[in-house]
Amino acid sequence: MVARQKIALLLKTEQPIENILIKGWVRTKRDSKTFSFIEINDGSCLKNMQVVVDANLSDYTEIRKLTTGSAVAVWGNLVASRGGGQKWEVQATRVDTISLAPETYPLQKKRHTDEYLRTIAHLRPRTNKYGAVFRIRSEISWAVHQFFRKRGFRYIHTPVITGSDCEGAGELFRVTTLEPSLSLSSDVKSLFSEDFFGQESNLTVSGQLSAEMLALSLGDVYTFGPTFRAENSNTSRHVAEFWMIEPEMAFCDLDGNMSLGEDLIKDLVSFTMDHCMEDLDLFSRFVDKTLLKTLENIVSSEFVRIPYKEAVDILLASKHSFDFTVSHGSDLQSEHERYLTENHFKKPIIIYDYPKTIKPFYMRLNDDNETVGAMDILVPRIGELIGGSQREERLDILEKRMESAGLSKENYWWYLDSRRYGTVPHSGFGLGFERLLMLVTGISNIRDVIPFPRTPGSIDF
Amino acid sequence: MVARQKIALLLKTEQPIENILIKGWVRTKRDSKTFSFIEINDGSCLKNMQVVVDANLSDYTEIRKLTTGSAVAVWGNLVASRGGGQKWEVQATRVDTISLAPETYPLQKKRHTDEYLRTIAHLRPRTNKYGAVFRIRSEISWAVHQFFRKRGFRYIHTPVITGSDCEGAGELFRVTTLEPSLSLSSDVKSLFSEDFFGQESNLTVSGQLSAEMLALSLGDVYTFGPTFRAENSNTSRHVAEFWMIEPEMAFCDLDGNMSLGEDLIKDLVSFTMDHCMEDLDLFSRFVDKTLLKTLENIVSSEFVRIPYKEAVDILLASKHSFDFTVSHGSDLQSEHERYLTENHFKKPIIIYDYPKTIKPFYMRLNDDNETVGAMDILVPRIGELIGGSQREERLDILEKRMESAGLSKENYWWYLDSRRYGTVPHSGFGLGFERLLMLVTGISNIRDVIPFPRTPGSIDF
Repeated sequence: MVARQKIALLLKTEQPIENILIKGWVRTKRDSKTFSFIEINDGSCLKNMQVVVDANLSDYTEIRKLTTGSAVAVWGNLVASRGGGQKWEVQATRVDTISLAPETYPLQKKRHTDEYLRTIAHLRPRTNKYGAVFRIRSEISWAVHQFFRKRGFRYIHTPVITGSDCEGAGELFRVTTLEPSLSLSSDVKSLFSEDFFGQESNLTVSGQLSAEMLALSLGDVYTFGPTFRAENSNTSRHVAEFWMIEPEMAFCDLDGNMSLGEDLIKDLVSFTMDHCMEDLDLFSRFVDKTLLKTLENIVSSEFVRIPYKEAVDILLASKHSFDFTVSHGSDLQSEHERYLTENHFKKPIIIYDYPKTIKPFYMRLNDDNETVGAMDILVPRIGELIGGSQREERLDILEKRMESAGLSKENYWWYLDSRRYGTVPHSGFGLGFERLLMLVTGISNIRDVIPFPRTPGSIDF
Repeated sequence: MVARQKIALLLKTEQPIENILIKGWVRTKRDSKTFSFIEINDGSCLKNMQVVVDANLSDYTEIRKLTTGSAVAVWGNLVASRGGGQKWEVQATRVDTISLAPETYPLQKKRHTDEYLRTIAHLRPRTNKYGAVFRIRSEISWAVHQFFRKRGFRYIHTPVITGSDCEGAGELFRVTTLEPSLSLSSDVKSLFSEDFFGQESNLTVSGQLSAEMLALSLGDVYTFGPTFRAENSNTSRHVAEFWMIEPEMAFCDLDGNMSLGEDLIKDLVSFTMDHCMEDLDLFSRFVDKTLLKTLENIVSSEFVRIPYKEAVDILLASKHSFDFTVSHGSDLQSEHERYLTENHFKKPIIIYDYPKTIKPFYMRLNDDNETVGAMDILVPRIGELIGGSQREERLDILEKRMESAGLSKENYWWYLDSRRYGTVPHSGFGLGFERLLMLVTGISNIRDVIPFPRTPGSIDF
């Protein structure tokens, strides 16, 4: 019995191979009087395998009926292609129809809009573009783990369901097992005491606080998991469920944090260029013609590091007209960030030392008593890709910051414990995985780099 | 400036090293008149670094004050240890106190019960045992990705928030942004129309249905992510949030599915024995003396494959007294599974072809019309480690099975599409990651192999 082989492997061969078996789906078929050419894709790579079927083959009348989207098994010999466009093709000795797709199959050979393909998200990975997106997604995930493992980081799993709100002001999804019809009480607290966890519980917006606990035990750790924001925003940059990478390092200051972020971005972009060129090539031809130049710029640039104050001065001095006013003390908007990285510096930049008033309680207060050790990494075309900080390791200052933020110290007793017992300087950041994928593929809508996006009013699939 | 090095790396050296810097936490300290010995751990490995501090060192009076749990930076030379018990030690030239832990530090040098350590889950990774657990957790995660990547599988991210219920009868957590006080309507449907996703939404119990869509595009895929069960069970085997590994393979039948499951288990156990022996050794000494024998048995055994019918016959013929009655047609209980793998076969077994009445709608109906192509892999000490099946790829039979199960075809339109367009035989399974960790460490409570367990009434940290 011949074992099935994947097309990605067969196309890499240096020599013809007799007696092979492939299985996959028909992308297109062209018939002449004496031959049929069938393009088969099995998802293992972008390229199809061209199969040549001689009209003399038994069952040829069945083979003529094959439609786009049908599934087949093909036995034959892999030989040098007589046509142009491909190095190898299969001379079929037998073709079995596994299933015949009806003519209503939604992915006929023509261009479909991204909007339409979102309505059939369960089928779109069968197209060239989305197959490439999800193969790259898989490859970069691997590169993430490889990057951290080489550096001695431990991969950790922080809880998705949580009783605390890391950012202090997130828009949260509540998790409950209460029957909706039972929620008649107006006394919310007594209601939650009946709930599964005995108190209000939410989907996490960040694994950071838990990750800090493990960094202060194991040294260097990172998470790579789903996070959630219940933001009612229908933009091309927002989904309710997305994946984050969050490293956290004991004995690491803000400088070390910036260096790790820069290294990580460069490493992941280089890895993609080294390992996914076939798929990247599709994006640079059909999605963003400047893609490879953007990626090369990121890999070869030394990231500029400037304090927030200086960044604001540059914006104020620019003649550029922004929708949002720029001023010292207020947060930078996406348009400001993109102006700095795209127009002014024309390469990735790291902005650090933000005003404490616009940043969360856990960021380390600087000696000026006005700014905190925050840092954001901005890249062209995306804006903020990484947001991080050195964490406040001094118990008394942390408690004061929590008081100002109106947070209950009782709820965070365990977090404060880490500053009571053997506290050390430590730092970390979060990288939005979908934003990275948008950077690397040139795709401009976040819904198109995650298999089944979750957005307001939309939970199909 | 000397760069800090991690203890795990230093302990692997073949030669003495001058001028090193380590940072970590004090595990213990012994003082004599002229010396102090400080054991430092930085989380990079189980072993501590012994630091020898001469009483002539400046700041020695400060060093004498160091308590268990305090954080320090130590400069010095790595030299062959003059004492027994370790190969290398650090002759300190300077010791800086980063922070002093108070005497109330909960992890003083004595044995603590697992029950007590669960109440301080944020600190327990600082103990030998839990440090080892979470290092092994990280290593096996890596091994999972490596296993699948070598075989050409793609890593995919399936949604956590979902509108469908994969198992058809799960106990679900509801996800909502409705204010509890707003939930006054008794009309549940109109209530959900106001909710974030416009319909009832839940935390996923399995990524399988989504994974099938990607397998039918990319070929071989796997998930590795969190899943949820709102089971109100306070046992040593249940948590509400746990991680699952779910491979899904196009063009794969039940036999291929079983082989992949067997290969995966053997590969992960071998990997742990090859890469984590220092940490494993701790478990085999203090947690389960038969651990290494159990693991070796798994790696070296050919897994027995028997149909459900035969398994029931064996149980009926046994003289063993079970709490639950055994009968043809009813589901196997944990005690039955463990009897078969531990007592009867004394090695891992795979039971397949279960009655359709006790299995979910998506499992492939066998020609006998009575059983489905399900398979469970059972291992000694754990029972079921893997549950999987060949999926029903025939549209008409699948629809009938959904009707019998009382499922709405409208809700699963996209799932059914995959059987309309290019349907092919395909298979997959789920492996509970925490169960695997229990197997590999010998730990008997699932709460002790996940950093911050979620159980009824408990959501601290």
